Amino acid sequence: MSLTAPLREEDVVAAIRAIVERTDASKVLLGIGDDAAVWQPSRSNRSVITTDMLVEDVHFTRATIPVRDIGWRAMAANCSDVAAMGARPVLATVGLALPPSWHLEEIEELYRGMAACADASRLVIAGGDLSRAPVATISITVIGEVRPSNLKTRSGGRPGDVIAVTGKLGASRAGLDLLGGRASLDDALAKEALAAHRTPVPRMREGQWFGASSNVHAMMDCSDGLSTDLARLCDASRCGAIVEEVPVAESARAMAGQCGEDSARYALAGGEDYELLVTIAPRAFNHLWRRYHARFGRPLYRVGVLQADESVVMRNDGGVEALQRSGWDHFA
Amino acid sequence: MSLTAPLREEDVVAAIRAIVERTDASKVLLGIGDDAAVWQPSRSNRSVITTDMLVEDVHFTRATIPVRDIGWRAMAANCSDVAAMGARPVLATVGLALPPSWHLEEIEELYRGMAACADASRLVIAGGDLSRAPVATISITVIGEVRPSNLKTRSGGRPGDVIAVTGKLGASRAGLDLLGGRASLDDALAKEALAAHRTPVPRMREGQWFGASSNVHAMMDCSDGLSTDLARLCDASRCGAIVEEVPVAESARAMAGQCGEDSARYALAGGEDYELLVTIAPRAFNHLWRRYHARFGRPLYRVGVLQADESVVMRNDGGVEALQRSGWDHFA
Repeated sequence: MSLTAPLREEDVVAAIRAIVERTDASKVLLGIGDDAAVWQPSRSNRSVITTDMLVEDVHFTRATIPVRDIGWRAMAANCSDVAAMGARPVLATVGLALPPSWHLEEIEELYRGMAACADASRLVIAGGDLSRAPVATISITVIGEVRPSNLKTRSGGRPGDVIAVTGKLGASRAGLDLLGGRASLDDALAKEALAAHRTPVPRMREGQWFGASSNVHAMMDCSDGLSTDLARLCDASRCGAIVEEVPVAESARAMAGQCGEDSARYALAGGEDYELLVTIAPRAFNHLWRRYHARFGRPLYRVGVLQADESVVMRNDGGVEALQRSGWDHFA
Repeated sequence: MSLTAPLREEDVVAAIRAIVERTDASKVLLGIGDDAAVWQPSRSNRSVITTDMLVEDVHFTRATIPVRDIGWRAMAANCSDVAAMGARPVLATVGLALPPSWHLEEIEELYRGMAACADASRLVIAGGDLSRAPVATISITVIGEVRPSNLKTRSGGRPGDVIAVTGKLGASRAGLDLLGGRASLDDALAKEALAAHRTPVPRMREGQWFGASSNVHAMMDCSDGLSTDLARLCDASRCGAIVEEVPVAESARAMAGQCGEDSARYALAGGEDYELLVTIAPRAFNHLWRRYHARFGRPLYRVGVLQADESVVMRNDGGVEALQRSGWDHFA
């Protein structure tokens, strides 16, 4: 299609349909093209739903990351929320509001990114909405399913629980700072940082695995920075936390060093890592750690412990200090 | 809260939660505040999902309609899509991207409108997302449920089916033209037109009632103008249609007259009426019409018939003429 021809809704829908239609979408009985999409929920499961809006030049910019990666990230953020409930994703709807400056080729690239992440997370894009707007906005809703006994929330944490995360933190922030020209990184670290920022991998299998363990008391994803997300988990669980160590990604450590910042604080404030934050019964932690390592070939990172006192503090050389919410406030 | 104080995400979420939390939300097991909302789907039902994005100054403007009505309309559009499948709505998620010019009081009004329509349609607002943006965008997703045998799509129409709509058309367009200062209307007609435009009532009970009838072959909602929506139904059903008469709302007739337009064409092009468009087995039409009238106290309006020839035409004095898609293209 010519870049200059005006787009018709049908053309865009047809292009999108060609990208997202899958042959194995057996659970989706009716997809794109009617008033609503239809699917068959599993009996005896609970359904979960999450929604996320991304706005151009607020949450992403076409100048710094490829449009396909914008699509991947948008879908990954929602999948991560589903994983954080212990659930598996089933289907997604995508609302797109786009200015005329977006060509059909870019819309297709965006959908290819979303579809790639949806495939990797084993969900189907089942419908959506398309509209003109002065600013590009992507609104994704993902539905998932979970056995009632596997459902994890952020409110289940108990004093004494070990706090852990599924990966080192701060790499996505390092990627953002690299793209923003704040400092440079050598090739290997730049690659780590850019991949973390552009194509974060939501911890789908890990989330379902934690869901199946009764020793995992609370779970959420680390999307707004550990300092902010841990405070939210503590609020919901009506307890506090002592942070003892922060697993910092190599690229984040290097970027923090170049910027003259403390690397732990840098990682604590770094959002969009999409690692899972879990709290685990203390006597089960070592056993769970070993099983996790055997299953996923990666370590689980111990961060600290929940405490009855509702303060959230970080242990430092001299004692403890209050941990500020240094991450992302969606409305600030 | 002061109009000048900066808003924090927690403040906005707390205000929203106070508006949307309901005591009878027994199906929603976990609502606003976690990574995802959780609910229990009914066994043996199918689930349906629909999503809609509304952008300020594209789909609505605060200058002409109260913010509460913007909320009502946004929710009504999604509920109407669920009704058009023969389903009943269960829950909604709301994504809001707002510029700083929106005060907390306006956000609350918007939610009051959405909550009022949700209450009237018996669904629960179970979660959402909140973000800053240069342009206000409302993205609503509604989940519904339907017995498999009651599911209606736009593809079930058969040649010979009687085409009918649940109400007279064009009043919403008349309201838009009135607000735009295109012409004036007397008080009673202005009231009809403004109500149709600001607080359209989705045909929830009617949709479920049609869903239960095997003589209703196809159904969709009339949101983009009958000429556009009927063409879409015909495309999906692989047939054509002969439009014999267009039920025109009084306010639309008056507005068309003032503007020197043909009233049937005016109504055919008028979107956002949210009436249901159904096709009915011809031998069942009269019986269904009587039962519908007895049940809802309003007539069903016969529009024409589906035909095997795939053209969509309108009968006029001399014969027939092709019916142009004069309604809304979301991407044009």
